[in-house]
Amino acid sequence: MYTLYYSPGAASLAVHAAIHETGADHQLVNVDLDVPRTDDYLRLNPQGTVPTLLIDGVAHRESAALLMLLAERHPEANLAPAPGAPGRAEWLQWTVALATSLGGPFRHWFYPQDLGRDTHDEASRAPVRRTLEAGFERIASHLAAHGPYLLGEQFSSADYQLCMYMRWSRAMPKPATEWPELDRLARLVIARPAWRSAVAMEKLRGWQLDGDQ
Amino acid sequence: MYTLYYSPGAASLAVHAAIHETGADHQLVNVDLDVPRTDDYLRLNPQGTVPTLLIDGVAHRESAALLMLLAERHPEANLAPAPGAPGRAEWLQWTVALATSLGGPFRHWFYPQDLGRDTHDEASRAPVRRTLEAGFERIASHLAAHGPYLLGEQFSSADYQLCMYMRWSRAMPKPATEWPELDRLARLVIARPAWRSAVAMEKLRGWQLDGDQ
Repeated sequence: MYTLYYSPGAASLAVHAAIHETGADHQLVNVDLDVPRTDDYLRLNPQGTVPTLLIDGVAHRESAALLMLLAERHPEANLAPAPGAPGRAEWLQWTVALATSLGGPFRHWFYPQDLGRDTHDEASRAPVRRTLEAGFERIASHLAAHGPYLLGEQFSSADYQLCMYMRWSRAMPKPATEWPELDRLARLVIARPAWRSAVAMEKLRGWQLDGDQ
Repeated sequence: MYTLYYSPGAASLAVHAAIHETGADHQLVNVDLDVPRTDDYLRLNPQGTVPTLLIDGVAHRESAALLMLLAERHPEANLAPAPGAPGRAEWLQWTVALATSLGGPFRHWFYPQDLGRDTHDEASRAPVRRTLEAGFERIASHLAAHGPYLLGEQFSSADYQLCMYMRWSRAMPKPATEWPELDRLARLVIARPAWRSAVAMEKLRGWQLDGDQ
């Protein structure tokens, strides 16, 4: 039995969808990010972030690490190539690269406080935008040559990560769906019953690709 | 046979030390980061970063992912707990958390260009410093309760990552060695023959803990 502490549409979304892929029993706890975290939650996750995944009473963090952990605990769910199988090294690489090259800059996009500012101005926003767009551009080029998924013909948990980050870009000047190869990947991902279940449970709205859930 | 494209003391250092732990045959190629990357290198690594690890002619990137890959390819080197073993989830979590919570901010520390500036001023440097010091503080608290290594009594590749980032902090206002728990971990790490070999091969100097190599 898993307990997932999530917030709708946050970094927990990819983990939530992955749990549905495994078919494992789980319960959800909605963490309101608009108010200070409770002491109980800070005991599970001292940084107060989501997701936290409770397994046998032990708290685990970091969405990319949780996707790796779920892939490993549920090999039958095919969230990742098995160790030694083709695509394995690529899957490790994408899982880390998405967390660092998109996850980090998105934090700066949404929390200018991390850069010492109350709000962004054009001078502080522009370089973050450039970094994110360059990241999506690189991924789109990869998909053009090696898609439709990050690992080619094989879906993996990294596609959930990518689709989650794409969703975060929906209000940016150039949303990720404007790259045709990314749009194609997202449409494959959102058609998966596990993603649909997670989106429905989290009552997500506001992205053009949430609409058909 | 591995080929590691590295630059002395860069993010390649942890991977280099880990290769020595495995005992695998390898060759080194020094990538000069002070001049533009060659077209040949950009074909291996379009972002021009180090490390790149060539395995059977295929290029792999992202230091955290490379550490995971080496751990998986060389289980006998004990770079990580085996899947399902105690500490495995923690190892995944630390490997990702170090890359995101230290690797990302260090990039901003060394490359203010990423934040749209030619050089840092106090207003842009201070929040990055705070982020890095908060990261080291959290890790030191963890080590105080659960050390001496990140996984307790068990050394893992994550300790190489951490020691590498500690080394990067050597010219910061508060170097990571000023936290006693971090200093203790670094002294355990630098005593390992594999770390010493990597440091010697890369001819590293300049950190107080390079001195005894």
